[in-house]
Order: sequence, then C-alpha cells, then structure tokens
Amino acid sequence: MNDDTNRKRRSGGRAGHKTRAGTAVLDQMSWRIPVNTDRPTEPLDADGVLAIHRGAMRILSEIGIEILHPDAVAIFKQAGCIVNGTNVRMDETFVMAMLARAPAQFTITPRNPEREIILGGRHMVFVNVSSPPNAWDMERGKRSGDFETFKEFIKLTQYFNCIHVAGGYPVEPIDIHPSVRHLDCLYEKLTLTDKVVHAYSLGAERVEDVMEMVRIAGGLTHAEFDAKPRMYTNINSVSPLKHDYPMLDGAMRLARRGQPVVVTPFTLAGAMAPVTMAGAVALSLAEGLSAIALLQYIKPGCPVMIGTFTSNVDMKSGAPAFGTPEYMRATQMTGQLARFYKLPLRSSGVCAANIPDGQAMWETSNSLWASVQSQTNMVYHAAGWLEGGLIASPEKFIMDCEILQMIQRYFEPSITATADDDIALDAIREVGPGGHYFGCQHTQDRYATAFYAPMVSDWRNYEAWQIDGAVWTVERAHRLYKQIIAEFEAPAMNEDHREELQRFVARRKQEGGAPTDF
Amino acid sequence: MNDDTNRKRRSGGRAGHKTRAGTAVLDQMSWRIPVNTDRPTEPLDADGVLAIHRGAMRILSEIGIEILHPDAVAIFKQAGCIVNGTNVRMDETFVMAMLARAPAQFTITPRNPEREIILGGRHMVFVNVSSPPNAWDMERGKRSGDFETFKEFIKLTQYFNCIHVAGGYPVEPIDIHPSVRHLDCLYEKLTLTDKVVHAYSLGAERVEDVMEMVRIAGGLTHAEFDAKPRMYTNINSVSPLKHDYPMLDGAMRLARRGQPVVVTPFTLAGAMAPVTMAGAVALSLAEGLSAIALLQYIKPGCPVMIGTFTSNVDMKSGAPAFGTPEYMRATQMTGQLARFYKLPLRSSGVCAANIPDGQAMWETSNSLWASVQSQTNMVYHAAGWLEGGLIASPEKFIMDCEILQMIQRYFEPSITATADDDIALDAIREVGPGGHYFGCQHTQDRYATAFYAPMVSDWRNYEAWQIDGAVWTVERAHRLYKQIIAEFEAPAMNEDHREELQRFVARRKQEGGAPTDF
Repeated sequence: MNDDTNRKRRSGGRAGHKTRAGTAVLDQMSWRIPVNTDRPTEPLDADGVLAIHRGAMRILSEIGIEILHPDAVAIFKQAGCIVNGTNVRMDETFVMAMLARAPAQFTITPRNPEREIILGGRHMVFVNVSSPPNAWDMERGKRSGDFETFKEFIKLTQYFNCIHVAGGYPVEPIDIHPSVRHLDCLYEKLTLTDKVVHAYSLGAERVEDVMEMVRIAGGLTHAEFDAKPRMYTNINSVSPLKHDYPMLDGAMRLARRGQPVVVTPFTLAGAMAPVTMAGAVALSLAEGLSAIALLQYIKPGCPVMIGTFTSNVDMKSGAPAFGTPEYMRATQMTGQLARFYKLPLRSSGVCAANIPDGQAMWETSNSLWASVQSQTNMVYHAAGWLEGGLIASPEKFIMDCEILQMIQRYFEPSITATADDDIALDAIREVGPGGHYFGCQHTQDRYATAFYAPMVSDWRNYEAWQIDGAVWTVERAHRLYKQIIAEFEAPAMNEDHREELQRFVARRKQEGGAPTDF
Repeated sequence: MNDDTNRKRRSGGRAGHKTRAGTAVLDQMSWRIPVNTDRPTEPLDADGVLAIHRGAMRILSEIGIEILHPDAVAIFKQAGCIVNGTNVRMDETFVMAMLARAPAQFTITPRNPEREIILGGRHMVFVNVSSPPNAWDMERGKRSGDFETFKEFIKLTQYFNCIHVAGGYPVEPIDIHPSVRHLDCLYEKLTLTDKVVHAYSLGAERVEDVMEMVRIAGGLTHAEFDAKPRMYTNINSVSPLKHDYPMLDGAMRLARRGQPVVVTPFTLAGAMAPVTMAGAVALSLAEGLSAIALLQYIKPGCPVMIGTFTSNVDMKSGAPAFGTPEYMRATQMTGQLARFYKLPLRSSGVCAANIPDGQAMWETSNSLWASVQSQTNMVYHAAGWLEGGLIASPEKFIMDCEILQMIQRYFEPSITATADDDIALDAIREVGPGGHYFGCQHTQDRYATAFYAPMVSDWRNYEAWQIDGAVWTVERAHRLYKQIIAEFEAPAMNEDHREELQRFVARRKQEGGAPTDF
C-alpha cells in the first residue's frame, strides 16, 4: 500500500472531498438509518393473526411444498420432515423451533463501515429498484437495459443518501453476456458505491464470485468476511408452493457463511395465490417460512428476513396491480405476522404505472406508506420502479427519493416535540394578535432546520413557476438526473483493493465466468 | 304538486333513471359513508397531549384573542370572561365547560335524505375543492374562475359518489357580481346536486339567504329546517389570534338555528404561527376552541367541528408548503387533541403543486393519508385542489377521486377477513404446487368483487398502453372530465321546490342581493 492510498484511507483525502463536492447538485438529507416511530397499523386482531399462522402451518404440514434441490430435501428428511419425492411436509413444532433460532435484528457492513445498515426492530432501510429488464427515460423512452444505463442507476444509488443498499441490478444489462454479467456488474457496484450489495442466487459460481468480490473490495480476510454479514441475497419461491434449485442453492451457500438471506414469495392474489388476501398472505408465509426453517436447521442463528410481495391481479385483464388497497392491507397483515414470528420484514415500493406520472406517484405513495404502517425493515424497489417492475426510470428514481426523504423527516421526533420552547407561549405573547412570526427570535433561532427542504418539488406559485418555463415534475427530475450523472464522482476506495478486484474479474472472465444453463 | 312531480318523489321516476344512466361513464363505487377502521397514528404521548392543551389554555387565559364582533364580545363578558376592548381572555374552566356541551357526533341531511352524512366517531366524508379564485385545465391553462367553470365543478361534485358534500364554491365565479353571487351559486348547487351544501359566513344577508334556499330546496317548513342540521358553514380565524366580524356573525346565526359550524384556523408555522409545530397546533386550537366556546354558550349543544389547517412555509421563499411531513404530523397531533376534547375533526386534501403531476399526487397522498391517520371526520378540498388552494382543476378532481375511492376500499373489513374461506386451505390444496388460481372455484366465486377496480388508473402493460396512444394520467383524467360534463344529468328534484327556489332568487336579486362592503 503506498502512502497516497494510506492517506486516503485515513481521512477521505481528495477523493473524500470530491465525494462531498459531488453531492452539491442537490441539498439532500444526510445519511441516516431511519427509525420508524409510528405504532404499526394492525388490521388483524389476535385471532386473525392466529388464523393466518394456523393456515400457513396447515399448508406446510398437510399440503407440503416442492423442494427442487436434492441436498435440501435430504436435510429436511434428516430433520424429521415427511418427504415424498420432492414434496416436503413439516409440522408446526419443527417450523417454530427453527424460527426461534433466527435473530430479530442484525447488521450488514459494506466496505465503508459508515454505511453499515441495521435490519430489524424499528429500523428501516431503502433499496434501489432491482431487476427490471427495461429502462425508460424522457429522452429515450422504453428500451432494453444495457450496461451504460446500469452504471447510471448505480451512480444514482450511490448519490442519494436516502438509498441505503445497492440491491439487485437496477436494470438488467443485456449487452453483457450472462456468464460474466455478475462480474462486470459487481465490479461497478463495489467501486461506484460504498453501500451494501446483493448477490443473485443464480447458480453456485455467481454466488461464490460475489462473496469473494465483496471480501476483496472490503480488504477482508476470509475469516473477517465470515465473522459477520457483509452482503446478502434475496430469493423468491415459485408460487404456489415451490422452491427451485438455484435459489435454494444460493441461499444455503450464504447461510453457511453467515450472510443474510431474504426470502420473498411473489404471490399475486387471483393468479398464483388465492383470491382472498388472507389466503394469499398465508400461502406467502408458508413458502417463506419453509425456506427460513431450512436455513436455520443448516446454520442455527443465521440472519434471515421474511419478504412480502403479495398484491392482486386486475381480474378483467389478469394484469398485476400494485399499490392497491389490497396490497396495502396484505403488507400490514404480513407485518403483524413477521412480528409474531420475530423476523425482520422486507416489502417494496411499487406501482403498475408505465411512466412517472400522477398514477405512478399515488400507487408508489400507497406502497411506501404501507411499508411504514407494516414496520417494514427493508424496502426493496424504493426508488425507480415502473410498469410492475418491468421498467427502471431515473426520473422516477429521483421523484421517489423525495418521498423517501419525507418519510425520513416524518420520523424525526423533533417535529412533534412539546417542550415549553416548542409550545412557544413566549413567542405567541410577543407576536400577539395580528402579528407575524417571520421576524421573531423564536423563528430566527430555528428557521434553518425547522422544516423539510424539498429536492425536486417546486413550491413556488404558478406565475413564478410559469416564468421559469412551466416545468412539470418529471422534467425537473430528468434535469437533475442528467446533472447528477454528469457531476458524479465515485466514493473513495483503497487502490490495492480495487486492483485486486480487477485482477479477480479478469481471471474469472478468462475461466469463462459462470455456466449459463442454470 | 301535480301527479308527475309526485311520482318522481316516490320512485325517482324518469329523472331518477337518468341520474343512474348518467353515472355510466365510469364504473365507480357506490355511495357510502366510509368508516375509518384504522387505529389513529398518535405521535404524542399523554404528556404531549396535555402540554398542547395547557398551551392552548394559557394562550386564551393569559394572552387572549381579538373578537371583532361587538355582540360576541358582550356575550363573552356576560359569560364571565375578561374583556379589554376587543381582547377577550377566558379560562380553562369556562372553555372546558363549553366544550362539554358540544355533541361528539351529528348528522347533516340535505334535500335528498339518502345523501345524509354523519360527522364524528370513525365516520369520514369527503368535500370538493372549495374557494380557489382560479381554474386550470389541460386545454385552457390557468384563468380566473367563472360561472360556467363553477357549474362544471358542481357537476363533478355530484357525479362522484365518493364526494359527499358540495362545500364552498369549487371556483370563485368572478363574472357574477358579489352581491348576487351566492344566489346564483346556491341555486346551481341545490339543483345540480342533492348533497349537503355550505354557506359562506360573509355577512348576514348571505347566510340568511342560503339557509332559506336550503329550506326551500328541501320543501321544509321553518320548524323542519331548525329541527336538525340541513347545511353548515366553515369559518376561519385571522391568525394569529383574531376572529373577524362576518365570520363570527355567520357562525352565530347558524348556531342559533342548530346548523353546524366548522371552525378552521389557518396557521402556517413560521408565518402566522410559531415555527414549531406544537406551537402552531396550540395556537390553532386556541383560536378554534374560543369560537366553539362562544357558540356553545349561545346555543348549548349546537353541532360544531374543530378544523385544522396547520402547515409550514418554505423558509427560503415564504411560500406555503402542503402535504409535508410537518403537515402530516400537525394533522395527527390535532386529531389527538380533537379526541381529547371529544370534537369531530376537519382536515384537508392539499398540495403546493401548480399542475396535476407527480408532485401534486405525492403531496395530496400525504395529506389524504394524514386525514386517515388523524381520524378526520370531514376532509375538505378532498378533490381538485392545486397551487396551495389558488387553483381548482377538473383533472386533479378526477385523479383525487381515485385516491378517495382507494381509501374507501381500504376501509372495507372484507380485505382482511380471516374466516376459513378467506384462509382458503381447500383452494390451496386443490391448486397445489405450480398450479394457477384463475380457474379454481374459490376464485370464480369471488373475482367480481375481490379487488379494487380503478377509474382513471391504467394497469395495462407498456406496450398495450403505448398502442392505445401512450396517454398519461392527466390526459386520461381530462378525457373523463369532458365526458362526464357532456353526459351529466341533474338529480331528480321536486318541480315545485325548484320553482319556488327560482322565485326566491329572482326576488332577492330584485332587492339587490347582499351588500358588498362587508
């Protein structure tokens, strides 16, 4: 390690300064792990919680779940579950004993330890949009994802302090061959951001490569990597009632090394789940809990989360709907069950809208407020998602970040403080009837931090807004997006670690990357 | 009354059928008074509630409030309050004794008794946008309000079942002389709608005229009108700490006849209220409770509501901000105090945005969800408001109605029901792993009513949406607006009552209407 690198590591140095300078496009909120101060919204009474719990347990003990990974089937059998081919049935006693092993809260520490996140309790973190095959922006419209667009979204992910996690690929870069895509993508994620990253559970090689890259980027020994959570994966079941091979394989690999696994069934009521929301939630829980039970049997105490992705289809067209009243209630109900099981919860910021317009924002608002109401700990797709997850949009990303910042501000206890200074009787006496509070000392002492300061919202009156070009929200967001990308500077990184990462990627590419017949 | 009129009254007849036919533009939800099933969000603990209560009481007992109506001052004096010129100070004992007289819940019955509303408890009703001086639509942009535009909004108000009240003028018709404006406007409101209407407290003549017109439109004797609430007024204080003459005058006239009064201070933190939200809420409550105490002294048990309109200004520009985190918390805090005082609550659906775009919808969503969280009973400006209340927009009206319908659906307990049929174990067993729920009997039995059906949202995928013209939400709303206005048919009305109303308006116009130097 040369002196220059050393200096950077100690102080942030020039690169650290650049990073700070790079955030000057916007006056955004500082990094924080928000703490949800609201009592959760609970549509179910205690009997309702038990009814859904018992439903999930009866699904697992009477109907069973297809486990398409032979090792996993063998492990379930060893644990005393009833195995018939790929069908595994497990009883409540086993499932609850396994769930009792799971931690209620854990951390994940990325290469920059200041970006450590807490998952569980009342903590809440926001993840960028993950996995759309397409991108849309105002200039280029809808198109397939590519690597350049991927990098743009990774820069947005790093830029916004209200985004805590660089989750799945914000858009799928189809111009990179699938055998090496994970190498190129993770290299960008680990160098353009210093936030927690994610591995897709799509075959052993990808998962092992990503774990190794996270280890290298952090300058960690293997023992240091294994000592605590450094990254995570998210797996989906194939609803109804099936866990496929690659997802289970990746989940077991991570669990064995103490890295967190989020299990998120995707249950659309009326399609791959019952048309009744309680049934869809019970099915989703059965699928999620079965995988968590497996992981806790393999590695007692390994960090896991239960995810919810229960929405409904439009019964006229079969199209998935998001941010609906049914979606909100399903998320709240799953939150109640997650607390019943003492598991951290993942939900999402979602919409069915195709472009970042009014519909997009009311659907997204509904889903983000449902994440607050359900005491969600990790909000996937919190910024940038459109068309039910088929499109990632930079304008939507920025518009969503405004909502996320408002949620963060909403949680600040200072807003609802009621000390004598907050009641402000002296100021009210001083200003008196008919007066004005702009000039009084009580206001002067507090005005700089008293209120939420917007990023992309325009609070001017119509005439001022019109003279300035009558720019609608989506166009304002587009301009900010271009400016952020143009002025982006990557966070500081140890050069030795970067070079080792480059060597690893080169070597693995030479070896052919990962097989693509998974 | 001729036979034809009689037939209409009994059955709805041809006009009744027309009304139903007129609702065919959209497949909207049926009329209902929603019941808020959520436990309210309560950022204050018991000490916090008491701190704000004590603050409000100290404002009233130590600082006092300016009462610019001599009769009201005399009444306060008679009640034992301390009067110095126009300054009135009242102690907690008096205020609390007066508040104890107010009903926790009451009804208002318009000319069509099926449109009766309930105000209080967990009931929630939605009011159209009220009082903007300007209108905006996609065709004509921003312009001053006129009578034709006024009528369009009244038609939208009647058309949507999720709008329960025809509140203030949805746009100010400046082409009608102020002396007779209330006569023309109320005639349209009372004939184009059959919902609860409102009187502006702007001078004795206007208030008396509106009460008389409501009586005539309903075919009521004076005794029948006085027997229960038939309409209402909303008054604002002149914050800080002033009640002006015309507002108090109208409020006292309505209270004496048992008609409801909503008292809504407009306290922008940092401008006409302290920069701290608890201080702004305490000031707002002091202003509101003082007027309610006056009305309860005059007419014990008269129906009243406390309103909240506490938001903040942008400290950079002084511009009012709406739908902010501070607005949400102020609304929730006021909800806690309204329940402490056992008074029904009014809040609003608001935004600072100038056009019905993304910002408009996240700000409006924030404020509407705050109305749910605060257990608001009457939501003013629930549809159609822009630019901090300076613009009414038909597109925004329709977009907001989608959110209101989703809130109504969100309250339906069937979504979170957990009976055996809802858990759907038999359906889950029948479909099994890897199957599909579209075809199963459990789905077939329920699909028609299982999920919220949207009005203006487009849930199709991008390609289907694009082939159909790539129409953004605001344009879809514009088309619906034009179609609703084109096909609108007024609700049934007794012809004798309509003719009497016409004669009354003609006579009062001949007499010169109301003085305009109030």
